[in-house]
Amino acid sequence: MSLLNPPPRLLMGPGPINCYPRVLSAMSTQLVGQYDPIMTGYMNEVMSLYRYVFNTNNDATLLIDGTSRAGIEAVLVSCIEPGDDVLVPVFGRFGHLLAEISQRAGANVHTIEAPWGEVFKPEQIEAAIQKIRPKVLALVQGDTSTTMLQPLEDIGEICTRYDVLFYSDATASIGGNPFEADKWKLDAVSVGLQKCLGGPSGSAPITLSDKYVQTVRKRQHVEAGIRNENHMDGLGLRIRSNYFDIPMILDYWGTERLNHHTEATSMLYAARECALQLREESLENSINRHKLHGDAMLAGVQGLNLKPFGDLKHKMNNVVGVHIPEDINGEDIRHTMLHQYNIEIGTSFGPLHGKIWRIGTMGYNARKDAVLHTLQALENTLRRAGHKLQSGLATDMAFDVYTNEEN
Amino acid sequence: MSLLNPPPRLLMGPGPINCYPRVLSAMSTQLVGQYDPIMTGYMNEVMSLYRYVFNTNNDATLLIDGTSRAGIEAVLVSCIEPGDDVLVPVFGRFGHLLAEISQRAGANVHTIEAPWGEVFKPEQIEAAIQKIRPKVLALVQGDTSTTMLQPLEDIGEICTRYDVLFYSDATASIGGNPFEADKWKLDAVSVGLQKCLGGPSGSAPITLSDKYVQTVRKRQHVEAGIRNENHMDGLGLRIRSNYFDIPMILDYWGTERLNHHTEATSMLYAARECALQLREESLENSINRHKLHGDAMLAGVQGLNLKPFGDLKHKMNNVVGVHIPEDINGEDIRHTMLHQYNIEIGTSFGPLHGKIWRIGTMGYNARKDAVLHTLQALENTLRRAGHKLQSGLATDMAFDVYTNEEN
Repeated sequence: MSLLNPPPRLLMGPGPINCYPRVLSAMSTQLVGQYDPIMTGYMNEVMSLYRYVFNTNNDATLLIDGTSRAGIEAVLVSCIEPGDDVLVPVFGRFGHLLAEISQRAGANVHTIEAPWGEVFKPEQIEAAIQKIRPKVLALVQGDTSTTMLQPLEDIGEICTRYDVLFYSDATASIGGNPFEADKWKLDAVSVGLQKCLGGPSGSAPITLSDKYVQTVRKRQHVEAGIRNENHMDGLGLRIRSNYFDIPMILDYWGTERLNHHTEATSMLYAARECALQLREESLENSINRHKLHGDAMLAGVQGLNLKPFGDLKHKMNNVVGVHIPEDINGEDIRHTMLHQYNIEIGTSFGPLHGKIWRIGTMGYNARKDAVLHTLQALENTLRRAGHKLQSGLATDMAFDVYTNEEN
Repeated sequence: MSLLNPPPRLLMGPGPINCYPRVLSAMSTQLVGQYDPIMTGYMNEVMSLYRYVFNTNNDATLLIDGTSRAGIEAVLVSCIEPGDDVLVPVFGRFGHLLAEISQRAGANVHTIEAPWGEVFKPEQIEAAIQKIRPKVLALVQGDTSTTMLQPLEDIGEICTRYDVLFYSDATASIGGNPFEADKWKLDAVSVGLQKCLGGPSGSAPITLSDKYVQTVRKRQHVEAGIRNENHMDGLGLRIRSNYFDIPMILDYWGTERLNHHTEATSMLYAARECALQLREESLENSINRHKLHGDAMLAGVQGLNLKPFGDLKHKMNNVVGVHIPEDINGEDIRHTMLHQYNIEIGTSFGPLHGKIWRIGTMGYNARKDAVLHTLQALENTLRRAGHKLQSGLATDMAFDVYTNEEN
C-alpha cells in the first residue's frame, strides 16, 4: 500500500469515465485561502462558465460540494416543505432516486412510470400535472440506467401554465446532448462532472431560476455563531438540511460571502477546467462530437450482431444499451474486457440487471480510437466466447459513420 | 480566464492550508471505474488507513463525499430521529453548528455553553447528561473559532454509563493532537482533510462504533430501482436524507457494494495520500511536530508583544488566537500580509470577530521555515503600522523553542 499507480483503464461504461488530462492537472494545483480574492475570483469564474454550460443567465449558478446526487438533494430539500406535492415521471433508476429523495424531504410524491427504454410525451406529463397540481415537477433528462433522453423542450411551458417549479437532473446528458435551461424554462438543474464534462465525480454544478431562488429565500435562516443583527430569519419552514441549505450556499457564493462550508477547492479547480474545456470546444461542437462517436458505437455494436436497447429515437448521444446475447455470460465478457484489455464497459441495474451492457462514449472518451479499440476488443472477446459475428464488420460500420458524418 | 495559476500563498490561517505536494500529485492520477477491483481495493485501503488515523478497530471507517460538515450531517441525521434529545456542549462556533444540524434533523437540542476561550470539565457534561438523558452527546474536540481543545478522555466513560451515543467532530484537531476513538469510547467521529491532515476540503472521513451502526441499521431502507427481493426495510423511521444515509453508504463501502453515490475518486485518492503521509510519519511524530511548531508560533507572537487568546492549557497544538492590539486595524495587517508577503493569517467569527487573528501551523505548514517567515512578515508589518515591539525578539523566542524542544 503505497504509490497510487492504477492500471490505465479505458472507461467506456455509463460513467465515471476518464478525466481530460487538463482536468487532472488542474486538480494538482496548490490551494489558496477560502476568502482570498484569487479564490472568490475563481468562484465567480465558475459561476460564469456554468451559465454557458447550462445555457442560462441565472445569477444563481454554482457548485454543490458532493457527488451529483448531492446536487439533486440540495435542489429538492431546499424547495420541498413537508407535505408538498411533487410529481416525478419515472423512466429509469434515476427517476426512482428523485422520488426517493423528495419523499425523504417530506414530500407527498406522485409518480407516473414509462417502461424502461421509453420516454414520456408532454401530454402524459401535462395530464398528471393537471390532476395532481404539484409544487414541483422533478424530471431526469438523461437516465443512464436505460440510456434514454427525455425531451424537455415542451415541459417548461406546461409548468409555467400550472405554476409548477420545473427541476431536471441532467447529470448524464449535459455537454453531450442539447440543454437549454432558460429557453426550456427550467427553474432548477443539477449535474455532475463525471459524464460528458470529462471530470471526476465529487462536484455538482446547479443553476436556479429567480422563481426558485425566491421560493427558497422564504426559508432563509442564518447559522448561530456567525449571526449578526443584520440577518433576519425567513418565515418559511427551516430547511431540513444545513449542508444542502441553498439560501445559505447562495450567500456564500454571493457578494456577502457569508461562511458556510469550506469550499472544496480542488474539486472547484476540476469543475472550472471541465467547463473551460467545453467552452473552448464550444457546446455545439461537443454535442456534435458526442453524437458522432455515439453513432459510431451504435453502428459498431450492431456490426457485432448485437441488438441495441430501447427506443433509439430517444437514445442519449453518449451511451448505448446493448442486449446481452442469450448464450453469453455478460459478466464474463466484462471481466475479460477489463482484465485482458483494460477496457471497462457497464453492467445494469434493477429490471435490466444481467440483460444489457451499457457502453459509453463521453467526455474525453468520445474519441475515434476509444470507439475502435472497444469494438475490436469486444469483437474478439465475443468471438472467443462463441458468439456468431462477422469479423471486421463492427469497425467497418463505425468507419462508415465517420465517413458519412465527419465532413 | 484560462490557465489556473494562483499565487504561491503560504496559508497560515485556521485552515484550509497548503496541501502536501504528494497529495496534489495523487489527485492528478487518472480514474478507474467505480466497481473496478482496483477501486474497491483503494476503498478498502482507505478504510484501513483511517482506522490508524482514528486509533480504532471499527469496521465502519470510511469517507463521506463532501466537506467536513457533510460528515457531521451524515453522522447526526442518520442517528437522530425527530424528537430525540441531543446534548451539545458549545464552546465555539462549531458547537453551534452541531446544535443547528441536530435541530434540522428534528432533534430536541439542549446546549450548555462555555465562554469562548474555555472548555468544559467532565463534571459539567455529566451533570447535563444526568439532567437531560440525551440519546446523543455531540461534542467538538478542537474548535478553530476559539483555538480550544476539549479534553475527551473522560467523556466516553460517562456516556457509556448513561447509554448515550458519543459523537465528536475532530476536523480541526485530528493528526495534530492526540485522538483515541476506541480508548475514549467514541461512537462516531467525523473529520476533514484540510487541517492537520494536509489535504484539500471535500472529503470527510468518519468512523462509527458497532453500537452506532446497530442503531442506524434499524432505519435501513434500500433505494427503489436497485432493490431486489433480498433486501428488507428496517422498522425505524426512514433517515431524512438519502445522500447522508449511513446504512446505505455502509452497504456501498461493504462487501455488498450496493450502488449509492458515485464515489468521488480524486478526493478518495487525496484522502488516501493524506493518511499514508501520516502513517509514514507516524501519528506520534505528527502530533509532536504540531506541538513543536505550534509552541514556536505561540512564543513568537508573544515576542511580537501580542497577547494570545484563551486558556493556553487547552489550546490546540495547531492554531493560536492572537488579540489584535487596540490601535491596530486587524484587516489592514491581514491585507498587507497577503498582498505583500503572500501569507494568509485568519480572521474570526461571531463574538471574536475583529478581536483576534488566528494563526495556524498545521499539516504541510507545520514547518520551521513557515513559522519563521510568518513571524518575520508579521513583525515587519506590525512595526510599519506603528505597533511597539522589539525587533528580532519573535524569531529569537521561536528559535528558543526549537532549541529546547527539538532534541
